[in-house]
Amino acid sequence: MESPIHTYLQELHRDLAQLQDGAVATYIPELARADPNWFGLCVVTTAGSVYAAGDTEQAFTIQSISKPFVYGLALEDNSRAEVLAKVGVEPTGDAFNAISLEPGTGRPRNPMINAGAIAMAGMIAGRTPAVRLARILESFSKCAGRELTLDETVYRSEAETGHRNRAIGHLLRNFGILNEPPDPVTDLYFKQCSVSVTCRDLGIMAATLANKGVNPVTGKPALRGEYVESVLSVMASCGMYDYAGEWLYRIGMPAKSGVAGGVIAVLPGQLGIGVFSPPLDARGNSVRGIRVCDALSRSLDLHLFNTPQANGSVVRLRFTGAEVNSSRQRPAGAMQLLRGSGAAIQLFQLQGTLVFSTCEVVVRNVLGARTGLEHLVLDLKHALSIDESACRLLYQLGQELAAQGKTVTFSRSAHLPALRRYMKAKLGARFPADYRAYEDHDVALEWCENRWLEGRLPPDGDGSSRSVESYDLFQGLTLDEIAVVHSFLEPRSYRQHEVMVEIGAEAQEVFLLARGTAVITLEMANGTHRRLGVFSPGMAFGEVGMLDQAPRSAVVTAETDVECHLLRRADFEALGRTHPQIQITLLRNMALGLARLLRKATREIGVFDY
Amino acid sequence: MESPIHTYLQELHRDLAQLQDGAVATYIPELARADPNWFGLCVVTTAGSVYAAGDTEQAFTIQSISKPFVYGLALEDNSRAEVLAKVGVEPTGDAFNAISLEPGTGRPRNPMINAGAIAMAGMIAGRTPAVRLARILESFSKCAGRELTLDETVYRSEAETGHRNRAIGHLLRNFGILNEPPDPVTDLYFKQCSVSVTCRDLGIMAATLANKGVNPVTGKPALRGEYVESVLSVMASCGMYDYAGEWLYRIGMPAKSGVAGGVIAVLPGQLGIGVFSPPLDARGNSVRGIRVCDALSRSLDLHLFNTPQANGSVVRLRFTGAEVNSSRQRPAGAMQLLRGSGAAIQLFQLQGTLVFSTCEVVVRNVLGARTGLEHLVLDLKHALSIDESACRLLYQLGQELAAQGKTVTFSRSAHLPALRRYMKAKLGARFPADYRAYEDHDVALEWCENRWLEGRLPPDGDGSSRSVESYDLFQGLTLDEIAVVHSFLEPRSYRQHEVMVEIGAEAQEVFLLARGTAVITLEMANGTHRRLGVFSPGMAFGEVGMLDQAPRSAVVTAETDVECHLLRRADFEALGRTHPQIQITLLRNMALGLARLLRKATREIGVFDY
Repeated sequence: MESPIHTYLQELHRDLAQLQDGAVATYIPELARADPNWFGLCVVTTAGSVYAAGDTEQAFTIQSISKPFVYGLALEDNSRAEVLAKVGVEPTGDAFNAISLEPGTGRPRNPMINAGAIAMAGMIAGRTPAVRLARILESFSKCAGRELTLDETVYRSEAETGHRNRAIGHLLRNFGILNEPPDPVTDLYFKQCSVSVTCRDLGIMAATLANKGVNPVTGKPALRGEYVESVLSVMASCGMYDYAGEWLYRIGMPAKSGVAGGVIAVLPGQLGIGVFSPPLDARGNSVRGIRVCDALSRSLDLHLFNTPQANGSVVRLRFTGAEVNSSRQRPAGAMQLLRGSGAAIQLFQLQGTLVFSTCEVVVRNVLGARTGLEHLVLDLKHALSIDESACRLLYQLGQELAAQGKTVTFSRSAHLPALRRYMKAKLGARFPADYRAYEDHDVALEWCENRWLEGRLPPDGDGSSRSVESYDLFQGLTLDEIAVVHSFLEPRSYRQHEVMVEIGAEAQEVFLLARGTAVITLEMANGTHRRLGVFSPGMAFGEVGMLDQAPRSAVVTAETDVECHLLRRADFEALGRTHPQIQITLLRNMALGLARLLRKATREIGVFDY
Repeated sequence: MESPIHTYLQELHRDLAQLQDGAVATYIPELARADPNWFGLCVVTTAGSVYAAGDTEQAFTIQSISKPFVYGLALEDNSRAEVLAKVGVEPTGDAFNAISLEPGTGRPRNPMINAGAIAMAGMIAGRTPAVRLARILESFSKCAGRELTLDETVYRSEAETGHRNRAIGHLLRNFGILNEPPDPVTDLYFKQCSVSVTCRDLGIMAATLANKGVNPVTGKPALRGEYVESVLSVMASCGMYDYAGEWLYRIGMPAKSGVAGGVIAVLPGQLGIGVFSPPLDARGNSVRGIRVCDALSRSLDLHLFNTPQANGSVVRLRFTGAEVNSSRQRPAGAMQLLRGSGAAIQLFQLQGTLVFSTCEVVVRNVLGARTGLEHLVLDLKHALSIDESACRLLYQLGQELAAQGKTVTFSRSAHLPALRRYMKAKLGARFPADYRAYEDHDVALEWCENRWLEGRLPPDGDGSSRSVESYDLFQGLTLDEIAVVHSFLEPRSYRQHEVMVEIGAEAQEVFLLARGTAVITLEMANGTHRRLGVFSPGMAFGEVGMLDQAPRSAVVTAETDVECHLLRRADFEALGRTHPQIQITLLRNMALGLARLLRKATREIGVFDY
């Protein structure tokens, strides 16, 4: 099926291909050879989708679009203070080739004008020009997701005609902005401008900036996130030269153009745009490039400041221990206590990006709930990322709760290593003791239940066992009837971790637990395991399979050493013939047990309310 | 409990209160009376939380912070072209009181310098100066969430000394930027600058800009969203005068300061900041105001371009009709068909803000699933907002699918009226027929199931009925045994919509459906109703209550005219005494039915995997 996005881009391409305004750049002879009809556009999302229309594989030179990427590389290769000492970040209101050095210091006003860009080329790490060029090519290639090379013809043409830029290089040397012979640096600048790219490359490079420096197509890091912020800032304030204010106002995306006809625009967090069309306007920007960005911004609502509020959706799901319980099957008395536990146990499932303003909602909800919270679970399965301010808020929340004897337990947070690192650094010697994190949310919930039940129930130690007379399934039977059933039961022992029921096995029996606990586990499609139930002494399991004779659908394992009794189907059926009232009671108890589980499941489905 | 956010702001306040740099403005005598120790700061989130520290209730005059709000008002009162004809949007790189008129046209460069702001005061609607002032006060008051008034003393002081601004007014009249006598307009400008606010007001006003013009504390619209985008653009490029580039680079939030010591900063979609501290630096910005914004930006990671990717989380939940089914109980054959329906029926539950880049993920997932999709449900319960480009994508997706005989059904979309409006406009005469939207997701899913089963199952028309012999509950009984049970059954009829079971009623019987359908409904905490099950002829319901004798926990209503049989508990128990083998079969069938429902519920809980 054709994506409507692709259809739209093709329509836009067809419409704007009509536009015949502007003229191909001629200041470098080689650029003048470009076909004015070449026209490609490409939208790449931070989710890694690439949509392209037109001449997206035509090679051309990157020209000034190299400037933001080299600026980012200069920040990686030097301290920020060193970089800021060599180039400012203020817009000039002047054209691209204005020299615009600060009076006195000779510092170029910003890295998007040629003077600033040449200064930045001088800050790329490497002992020789060849090493520096290799570093630039490597960085650009990571951003584009393929190996980029130089267009030697354009480079030679630039080198032969770049007198103005050579003059700038000497001025920079004069002011001590360059501390080395300027010609090799200017030459490196010519080379960075002569890197050969396609429109598709530009789209992916722009999307890499939109994606905090991680190439969204390859998934590989290309530029450090902290510098991407700076790169986008100078693109926003200085990227379109004397058109910067109107560009931000109308189109609302940091952008950069090049005289070969390329344009990139970046909507941070969302997408990157690459356009290629050689005819330029009087300011040196691609005519169709600007029109494409304008049309996309309007029709796709891409303006940077057109930002809907999304803090509210950080809590994906929230419930109390009175509404949803762990899979541990507990005696009726314990279940009743939990059903009456109000808001003592609360689980918040968070989602999306955890930043200050989303975590604020969590903190406020937790602290604002004056309803007797004692044990909090923060389930992070659906959290996509976490920044330092969010880590700090969650840490502080934990400290605040701990000071009042309350607990915080994290679940499914392993995919956010920054949280663990932050907690480790903050807690020091109290780590990991004071950082409770489980990868199984069911275990996290059970921990809270156990903790809350402590002292409220008579302790039910590991060694506790139940006699046959007190099996739940035998409720309502007389002692004589129990004796009859007992004669059919087969005692069995299992070692801790031993498999009691294999998946797919024929269901021949019901298990009655005398001592120890057994856990039913399902292997999920993604290879993880999900606990379906944990059974304690006195309880029975396996009756569903025994009744419907379907193969076992889950694995049962001995969580501890286990002693139990087996009641086999054949014996159960025999009982029905000789002692129908006993079988009636057993069936009724089985049906009641299933009904209880069904009520619990229905209640929980209602809470999850997908 | 103390919020850690409040704690942090108080620490920051305490630290920066030490700072003694800067000098209180003296260019208006009245401003010079400010206490240099006054210092307040306030952070207001778009979720409506207000965090304040220090002198947040001290009144002072808004001064230049009025400019962005009056610019927004001018855009509301005029066409955008009219506004742009009177004032540009380019930064000047000059100081706040620079006159900076464009050569030739006399148009002020931007609305953040005094000349541009006076031009904008001239564009506020109203026949008399008093009406215009009332309009400005009303707009500011909506943004602040309380009624703001003029500080008459400061106004008189400004009016007595504002010669430079009067000169600007006359220049603007000279160039035809003002088309009326300039003094009343300049006077209105003095008044807008003299509106009395507190630091808390500024925080809320900033948060209103962060929240697309809706005051997040009152929840009321204050400024149209499309103009907020423009206001933030000029704040970003021109708000901090000749400090704009560095501000965007370091602090990364559109901002505005006033000479009385106020500063606002806006992180779109997330929060607004208000600071008040009278001592100013050489550029006329509050020293502590800048330091507060800087500290908050760093410690809370607030930079505009520090934007994590969040497109990926748009799909909150996704399942097929083979995994999760509607609550309609179907005969085993139909259920088996559905379990084998692969990806023919798919539900996508979307969440968060639906914009181009998030909807792109949806479209790609739907179109990319070459797995035999036939019927799609888009459940929008958790979608917070939708913009036009997202509406268009969903519309186009529907068209694309319809062209191939596939269907799209929306569920729970009533809170997004923009979607319905868009569909209505696009579909024209085909609306509402071609826009299928249900407020009950269960009904939406059932519609898809019914549609998919059509032609695959023998039709099961409304009039179909089942004989007693074919009741599911009687499976395994001989005809003679059925005759025995039949003698205990009581026939009953219900009209369509009649209540068959009241909530809380004593559970005395099991219902056996002969004709028509019955629906079990639960009223949720929020007053909505949730279908738990829909039963068809041949099926039984009410057995759980009959077994465990708990009061009925849900309402059952006749969906159509219904004929059924009741089997009362007393008769069921009597059967057990006289015909135990019959009761054994009935109990076994009940247990098997419950086991089937439990397996389905467990599977669905696994799919929801909270």
